Amino acid sequence: MTKVTVICGGVGAARFLRGLVQVVDPAGITAIVNVGDDTVLHGLEISPDLDTITYTMAGAIDPERGWGLVDETWQAMQLVRNYATANAISANDPTGNDAAGWFSLGDRDLGTHLYRTSRRRAGATLSGVTTEIAQAWGLELALVPATDDPVRTELITTDGRRLSFQEYFVREQHDVAVRSVEVVGADDARPAPGVLGAINDADVVVIAPSNPVVSIDPVLAIPGIRDALVAARQRTVAVSPIVGGVALKGPADRLLRELGHDATATGIARWYAPLAATLVIDEVDADLADDVAGEGLRCVVAPTVMSGPVESAALARRCLAEVLG
Amino acid sequence: MTKVTVICGGVGAARFLRGLVQVVDPAGITAIVNVGDDTVLHGLEISPDLDTITYTMAGAIDPERGWGLVDETWQAMQLVRNYATANAISANDPTGNDAAGWFSLGDRDLGTHLYRTSRRRAGATLSGVTTEIAQAWGLELALVPATDDPVRTELITTDGRRLSFQEYFVREQHDVAVRSVEVVGADDARPAPGVLGAINDADVVVIAPSNPVVSIDPVLAIPGIRDALVAARQRTVAVSPIVGGVALKGPADRLLRELGHDATATGIARWYAPLAATLVIDEVDADLADDVAGEGLRCVVAPTVMSGPVESAALARRCLAEVLG
Repeated sequence: MTKVTVICGGVGAARFLRGLVQVVDPAGITAIVNVGDDTVLHGLEISPDLDTITYTMAGAIDPERGWGLVDETWQAMQLVRNYATANAISANDPTGNDAAGWFSLGDRDLGTHLYRTSRRRAGATLSGVTTEIAQAWGLELALVPATDDPVRTELITTDGRRLSFQEYFVREQHDVAVRSVEVVGADDARPAPGVLGAINDADVVVIAPSNPVVSIDPVLAIPGIRDALVAARQRTVAVSPIVGGVALKGPADRLLRELGHDATATGIARWYAPLAATLVIDEVDADLADDVAGEGLRCVVAPTVMSGPVESAALARRCLAEVLG
Repeated sequence: MTKVTVICGGVGAARFLRGLVQVVDPAGITAIVNVGDDTVLHGLEISPDLDTITYTMAGAIDPERGWGLVDETWQAMQLVRNYATANAISANDPTGNDAAGWFSLGDRDLGTHLYRTSRRRAGATLSGVTTEIAQAWGLELALVPATDDPVRTELITTDGRRLSFQEYFVREQHDVAVRSVEVVGADDARPAPGVLGAINDADVVVIAPSNPVVSIDPVLAIPGIRDALVAARQRTVAVSPIVGGVALKGPADRLLRELGHDATATGIARWYAPLAATLVIDEVDADLADDVAGEGLRCVVAPTVMSGPVESAALARRCLAEVLG
């Protein structure tokens, strides 16, 4: 059985995995998932990237929104917002007030957060409850948070504010200038059980086309994971999340520029060269192939836009072929 | 404006208040509410008695269930239970696992708990957020938790288990034998702002027909409240929650017996005699009037079963008349 380990953020990684399960036995797949986006809202433990992957792989993601569950209702959030309006509670007050309801939690989705929070309070690890949730949805691949320890991606804005990832991404709609990014707690975190083994034992490692700054880097920041990936470099393929100089989704391009990097496939090549022997870039960036190769990794030009399951499977097949031949 | 202060549990008190607002200006009413039933489930702060009164006074209580909100849906809880079933999570494991979903939280109702939990985490007191929630529902009376400090009613069973009130009441369906009841944290609790003033300044104090053991006693256990009620005794009317030897709702009769008291109107008279100069007992207990009077308080025989708003208003009017003439 082919063993494939994928370093994952949320949506981009979920789409890649949706293809990967079509081309290898899902039982051989391990998804190692960013938890720097995790947060506590309304007292509930929220793990957006884990849930996006779970719901996608279960075929239960809402296809129009691209996040959250199908057949969703919004009764809880509607009442929260009624309360906030009646009391003039602002999302932007100094407490970053989630009581204003700026983070939309659907009623079905709340079930996941209620369950996870209960299990965590009863002593379960995040990886333990992640396995429980994945199993309930019938997932066949292994879904593992990068760490069971608290790690939080925080963005420091040019005007000196410190935002959690969700405050930055959802509340501020990533429409703020960022000076730096910190992965708070990473130095003291340990890889979750199974993470290092999954990298060491993999026939192929894939760095999914996720945001390198706020999705992949918080995984790499956990001591031991970067070293394991460096050791696995010859077996590792990264997929560029930058296509034609822009991120397909989210603020990766803007963030890269603000932090002083090139928001191009070449910039991604420079970023991942120590970790991946191969980088897949999109056909629209074919003219950058030599520049990418100049960064010291093998450049593969292929369609990378995963508009549907067929495109996802083709990209996954291509990534595997680059290593397995 | 007539000032009326009501010492409250949940359903019985809510029905009384529903009548009281018909006979006096609601702006003169203060409801002081038990918080010994409060709990944290799934990380959310739940205040069942406060919510029952709020929803009832807003005309939003579900009339068939008698608790929770009308137009309720159960999507979140259904998913929680799916997770629990898939992972064989038992409500009765040693962690008292709320992950099993034994406490039914409706999707709309969750909005209240999400809002309250957020506001509490942002620094609001329970009385502060209670006022916010009441205002959003348009309530005109003052709704005040007995205390802003953590107070928890715990029941010790004859087989030595220690249960929170909700574990006892909801999870075990109060079908266990109780040896004793403790109001944990009461000694260190202070009355919430406005509580003592509302008792001291009231023209009439009413002890609502709530469970004396697990609804009224946890209010009295907070230092200062019992003394204030003793001082207000001549202005205080209690309504017996025991009718014909049984509680109209819940386990008050069984609890009274298990703790060595009479589960009769006379037993209630003995219980409340230090606090109330007058006790209203139901017509079916008319033959106990002399026994009640023998306990040292004035006995009033009246219809006490509040099957609808008309009956509630009549009972409220009668209670006020006994003090105001």
